[in-house]
Amino acid sequence: MTRRLPFTEMLAAAWQKNNSLLCVGLDPDPAKFPAHLKGRAEGDNSPIFEFCAAIVDATADLACAFKPQIAYFAARRAEDQLEALIAHIHEKHPGIPVILDAKRGDIGSTAEQYAVEAFERFRADAVTVNPYMGRDSVEPWLAWPDKGVILLCRTSNPGGSDLQFLDVGGEKLYERVARLAAKDWNSSGQIGLVVGATFPAEIARVREIVGDLPLLVPGIGAQGGDIEATVKAGQTADGSGLMINSSRAILYAGRDENFAAAARRVAEETRDAINRYR
Amino acid sequence: MTRRLPFTEMLAAAWQKNNSLLCVGLDPDPAKFPAHLKGRAEGDNSPIFEFCAAIVDATADLACAFKPQIAYFAARRAEDQLEALIAHIHEKHPGIPVILDAKRGDIGSTAEQYAVEAFERFRADAVTVNPYMGRDSVEPWLAWPDKGVILLCRTSNPGGSDLQFLDVGGEKLYERVARLAAKDWNSSGQIGLVVGATFPAEIARVREIVGDLPLLVPGIGAQGGDIEATVKAGQTADGSGLMINSSRAILYAGRDENFAAAARRVAEETRDAINRYR
Repeated sequence: MTRRLPFTEMLAAAWQKNNSLLCVGLDPDPAKFPAHLKGRAEGDNSPIFEFCAAIVDATADLACAFKPQIAYFAARRAEDQLEALIAHIHEKHPGIPVILDAKRGDIGSTAEQYAVEAFERFRADAVTVNPYMGRDSVEPWLAWPDKGVILLCRTSNPGGSDLQFLDVGGEKLYERVARLAAKDWNSSGQIGLVVGATFPAEIARVREIVGDLPLLVPGIGAQGGDIEATVKAGQTADGSGLMINSSRAILYAGRDENFAAAARRVAEETRDAINRYR
Repeated sequence: MTRRLPFTEMLAAAWQKNNSLLCVGLDPDPAKFPAHLKGRAEGDNSPIFEFCAAIVDATADLACAFKPQIAYFAARRAEDQLEALIAHIHEKHPGIPVILDAKRGDIGSTAEQYAVEAFERFRADAVTVNPYMGRDSVEPWLAWPDKGVILLCRTSNPGGSDLQFLDVGGEKLYERVARLAAKDWNSSGQIGLVVGATFPAEIARVREIVGDLPLLVPGIGAQGGDIEATVKAGQTADGSGLMINSSRAILYAGRDENFAAAARRVAEETRDAINRYR
């Protein structure tokens, strides 16, 4: 097993090599798979790997990262498929970092167990983490010096405002999270933030606060976020700094045997649409 | 498979039948297991079930709930042991609800997948959920009308104050979470809250805000929370309303073949210590 680069270095290299800020989200829902990948024996999860690996192989030169969402695997007892998928990405596309979207959040020895799950069992390069429990829910993840820790800051859903948009003494809660993350918690340079594409003004505000920290931006495509506004608000001075995620629009672009080629077309269009504004 | 009671009814019945507010946390760490449960083949996870099932069988008449922490299973690729453990509790101790401590938090179809994981795959009666993403991260869980949804409110760790103790316009963030949970999100009566035993004044404040909602209270035992202060601050008028969790102090009370008997002794002492102040 060859040693992998630290997440931040791998991401910077992928931004450049693939000329892409596109993160391909892997949310496999067998109900939406092409017919030839359905209809096997109950409990046979192997189409999940097959589907995702085909998407990965078709888009790896267009992406800066892959982001499997663990819930889609866990709901189907398909952790083995997720392990195989990440191993496949490492082997076939070693320059592309894998972000495990798990939104974990806990403290002490429990957080350590979650880090073992993400980094040793699944061999992810980075993980998404929920900041609600504060500093000591973030620190255990940082004990893995090569790994990225991407904290929820301003999420793309309507209910995100319930807490994140509250005023906490002259700033919003999401701004406080951005400030804590960038100034207090990030001594080792491993932290990134999740900021939804549905709120471009808030992407710009987070960028102001956090300098060049990488931002993972969900919400374009199916969720309706605007690509131009996202790129203009979030890019760093060198035109990078973003992992703009698209999942469903790419995964389910085609519903027949040519689904991977259809996914590639949409991924390419999305990458190019992003690059138009860099 | 017999139908299980709704979580809230099961909890109320267990409070009464076992005269107990004690929740036994199941955080299995093989490094702390008795010698006769170690030393098997690498990758053999069956001691995890054996250990937990022995603890469960030794304490089921002293507890109002069991709370397995999923990270301890996931880190070791031992989801099958967790499935077997919860099935064992349902079969042998059908009156005791199982709270899956997973602190999940996501939206839309992803949250639905997590609910399938918790409620269909693992067959938990309730789950812990992180409120940072707001209302639409809570709603998908409530689509399972018999299940409990226990939101993080005021956690027991020092860093909990980083966000939860911020002033959000005349109240603290954790108070806002308590108010949203009890008044806006709880139309179906499925919601409970996590409030750490390390902050009795805040348990009392949450109790004021939420009426009779069940509170899951970690932090006694190893984390140093005070039982008397916790019970006095958190109990409802009828002397219930609390699931006071203890994990390590019970699980690792003994380190030899009599570990289950040792666990039972500590569980009984803890239940009695709690009951002294009801």
